[in-house]
Amino acid sequence: MYVIIVYDIKVERINRVRKYLKTYLDWVQNSVFEGEVTKAELRRIKKELKEITNEKEDCVLIYVVRLKRYIERELMGIEKGDIDVII
Amino acid sequence: MYVIIVYDIKVERINRVRKYLKTYLDWVQNSVFEGEVTKAELRRIKKELKEITNEKEDCVLIYVVRLKRYIERELMGIEKGDIDVII
Repeated sequence: MYVIIVYDIKVERINRVRKYLKTYLDWVQNSVFEGEVTKAELRRIKKELKEITNEKEDCVLIYVVRLKRYIERELMGIEKGDIDVII
Repeated sequence: MYVIIVYDIKVERINRVRKYLKTYLDWVQNSVFEGEVTKAELRRIKKELKEITNEKEDCVLIYVVRLKRYIERELMGIEKGDIDVII
């Protein structure tokens, strides 16, 4: 399955979230990761995000499509560089 | 078609972008709008975003699925209130 994760997270937790997501997904914009994962991996990601984030202050949106080809992506403006630069 | 628009835009342009997107889409997170639009509407949205944003400083991601049921969304954490509060 293909997932897109968009987050709005307090600055003190952002680096932990990014470091974690980067082990499974590609960074595509400041607050967006996406990529192909298995069902088991997605379960693990959700569990870990629940632990890292604060449900009263943070917000994470997870979009899932069964096949990547169901979704088209278009980028306008600047492309983000490598996340290694910022974490 | 169903679209998800995620943006990372300089603060001085954010309100214009939000006010515009809100006429077509629903606000679901700080930097995320989504909703059902026609092909013609999507063309208009892209054209307008190109005019409002600065392609050297801003970044807009547009995800498109043909049918809403192709994509599942899950929210973790806080839900955002009405955008009217902030613009």
